[in-house]
Amino acid sequence: MINSTISLEIIKGIAIPSPSKIVLLVIDGLGGLPDPETGKTELETANIPNLDRLATKGICGVTDPVSPGITPGSAPGHLALFGYDPVAFNIGRGVLEAIGIDFDLQPGDVAARGNFCTVDENGLVTDRRAGRVSNEKCTELSQLLDGQLIDNVRVLVCPVREHRFVAVFRGEGLVPEVSDSDPLLIGVAPKSIAALSPEASRLASVANKFVAQAKVVLAEHYPANMVLLRGFSRHPHLPSMSEIYKLKPAAIASYPMYRGLAKLVGMEVLKTGTTIEDEFMTLKQSYPNYDFFFLHIKGADNAGEDGDFHRRVGIFEQIDSTIPGLTSLEPDVIVVTGDHSTPAMLKGHSWHPVPILLYSKWCRPDRVGEFSELACTSGGLGRFPATQVMLLAMANALKLIKFGA
Amino acid sequence: MINSTISLEIIKGIAIPSPSKIVLLVIDGLGGLPDPETGKTELETANIPNLDRLATKGICGVTDPVSPGITPGSAPGHLALFGYDPVAFNIGRGVLEAIGIDFDLQPGDVAARGNFCTVDENGLVTDRRAGRVSNEKCTELSQLLDGQLIDNVRVLVCPVREHRFVAVFRGEGLVPEVSDSDPLLIGVAPKSIAALSPEASRLASVANKFVAQAKVVLAEHYPANMVLLRGFSRHPHLPSMSEIYKLKPAAIASYPMYRGLAKLVGMEVLKTGTTIEDEFMTLKQSYPNYDFFFLHIKGADNAGEDGDFHRRVGIFEQIDSTIPGLTSLEPDVIVVTGDHSTPAMLKGHSWHPVPILLYSKWCRPDRVGEFSELACTSGGLGRFPATQVMLLAMANALKLIKFGA
Repeated sequence: MINSTISLEIIKGIAIPSPSKIVLLVIDGLGGLPDPETGKTELETANIPNLDRLATKGICGVTDPVSPGITPGSAPGHLALFGYDPVAFNIGRGVLEAIGIDFDLQPGDVAARGNFCTVDENGLVTDRRAGRVSNEKCTELSQLLDGQLIDNVRVLVCPVREHRFVAVFRGEGLVPEVSDSDPLLIGVAPKSIAALSPEASRLASVANKFVAQAKVVLAEHYPANMVLLRGFSRHPHLPSMSEIYKLKPAAIASYPMYRGLAKLVGMEVLKTGTTIEDEFMTLKQSYPNYDFFFLHIKGADNAGEDGDFHRRVGIFEQIDSTIPGLTSLEPDVIVVTGDHSTPAMLKGHSWHPVPILLYSKWCRPDRVGEFSELACTSGGLGRFPATQVMLLAMANALKLIKFGA
Repeated sequence: MINSTISLEIIKGIAIPSPSKIVLLVIDGLGGLPDPETGKTELETANIPNLDRLATKGICGVTDPVSPGITPGSAPGHLALFGYDPVAFNIGRGVLEAIGIDFDLQPGDVAARGNFCTVDENGLVTDRRAGRVSNEKCTELSQLLDGQLIDNVRVLVCPVREHRFVAVFRGEGLVPEVSDSDPLLIGVAPKSIAALSPEASRLASVANKFVAQAKVVLAEHYPANMVLLRGFSRHPHLPSMSEIYKLKPAAIASYPMYRGLAKLVGMEVLKTGTTIEDEFMTLKQSYPNYDFFFLHIKGADNAGEDGDFHRRVGIFEQIDSTIPGLTSLEPDVIVVTGDHSTPAMLKGHSWHPVPILLYSKWCRPDRVGEFSELACTSGGLGRFPATQVMLLAMANALKLIKFGA
């Protein structure tokens, strides 16, 4: 191989602690697509003088979170920004669901994503989502299943939303290499959970007993008279950001999923409120205590998923108004970017590259004079993998020594 | 490693069938070099208003087929465009020659590239190409060698052009790990073909007997009084494009080499004529029956190899005039690119990156207003490996679901 790839081990070897501070502001679903009427994206439509000023003083570009053409989920999008290969560190569905509800996974726990579903008198699935039961019903049914002890394994069942729940298996010797019971189809029976390695037979056996028991407990709860499980997985071991980067990192995020992802990479998760202003206030208050801040703002992604172009514009403008508060803290490095694009036009995550701006005293400014998809495309950072964002932030914070003599 | 690599397995996991249609128009040898007089490349000299319009509405960039600095052959150039790593899937010389003459290779066949050559009375090679015998002579001599049965192996010999032929060994238990007989030098004897693995000894033995027999048959045919063989290889197994991308792909190409490469990746090869207009007519007629079309246009590469700048300009203009017929079909995604550059100035393939334009409803247009090397270099797709072209096409056709949760 003649192409260089920088491993986390290499970064460990050149990262040094220093007093300089980095703020990574992640605007979830930042990238958009033009409104056919105006030819302008949400970001291009928004009046964001402070971000434009920062783009002018800084250097800009666009990132590919996973790869050109690949639409990332939230986990790969964030892991990439934290510098972890999102393909190598692909996190299981069960763990993600658990993280998403702030469940405190212990080492050894195996989590599975569960659906309440409907089966007919022959045991065949007729609705994989049990008619999307209410959140209240989900909570009630989860409590019925919660806390069973099967062969010395405690099964913890927590409601997520509608038909969704998390089942966490806690006990000795549980290995998550088991198949799903969810057939992902209707008209067939739930599948038996099979061990995919000999070590996994204990979990398979416990999980099948849990499902059988659930069928009995739920018998009278039509349409939610059965469960489907998938994505059995264990809390992955990721080297922590302090090991790799020698940072003391903190996360400020109002949604549990992002707090969970930050915890996975060893950030300290700070208590904060639900608004953008709350999050910036938390940043200000805790600013002396850490040297890296991951600040996550969710709203623009939700607005994109709802197809609400104008709400996205408004959120960008609201974020812009908080930027003077951020710059007044004088961080050595400010990075503003997103974990993926969520164009209102597509009502969902998309593969489009994500604008990024990096400001530091050492950034070598380019000609970009505004923060937008189009302007960033011709920025000095070019188009690059999001996994390199941390390297750039660290370099600009003068926290990386020379590689090689 | 902090950079992600997307494997074909990952793509398989996120590709979904859908009614949307992709047209991949490959202009062989598309990229060029400026005429020193005008400072403009062939493409920049050509009057191509329709391609310029498509570039304006779409997003542009440049690709590296194999790597910056690497001049690709036709096979790597095309495999990359189909999304296959051209280094991992390197196709043997013998198989490529067979494909190039439309030879219908069977599973188990081993193909070798052959040269008629000249040896002196001591058996030493004096001319590796036998004075470049005529095509007629090549056909006549090939027929003399064709069809022998050696140890239950049938040896099929087909003329290619001038001194070139293909020898296909058909029989049980043939393993292609054998050395070449072609010494690639003059003044030495042809080498004995050696088995490079124990399983390959049967093929080595048969091939040596074939060479010995050829020497006898050709004894009176000076200067073509001997043969040299190289590049023993078997039809490689490539996962098909329908397996990977869930597409129903069709190929439209007037040259056998490209039809063969398309067949290798599981495309259905459509019958077509020899002109650009024939190919576009075939596209139109078969348009309802497939969801992916590889349309290959050869002329600009030949003109480049001939060093004929103006013929290249004319071919680009001719292609341009067919573009309205293409856009009137309203494919969901149109990609126009090349498999490599063939600048007239260099009279051959070159390493220069290749312009690409992608048009779809979801492409996020850039500022590029014309289809040229210079304009594409500042396009929104940036500079990227050609192996990512299919991912982008698939994403823009909304045929890829989210990666990771």
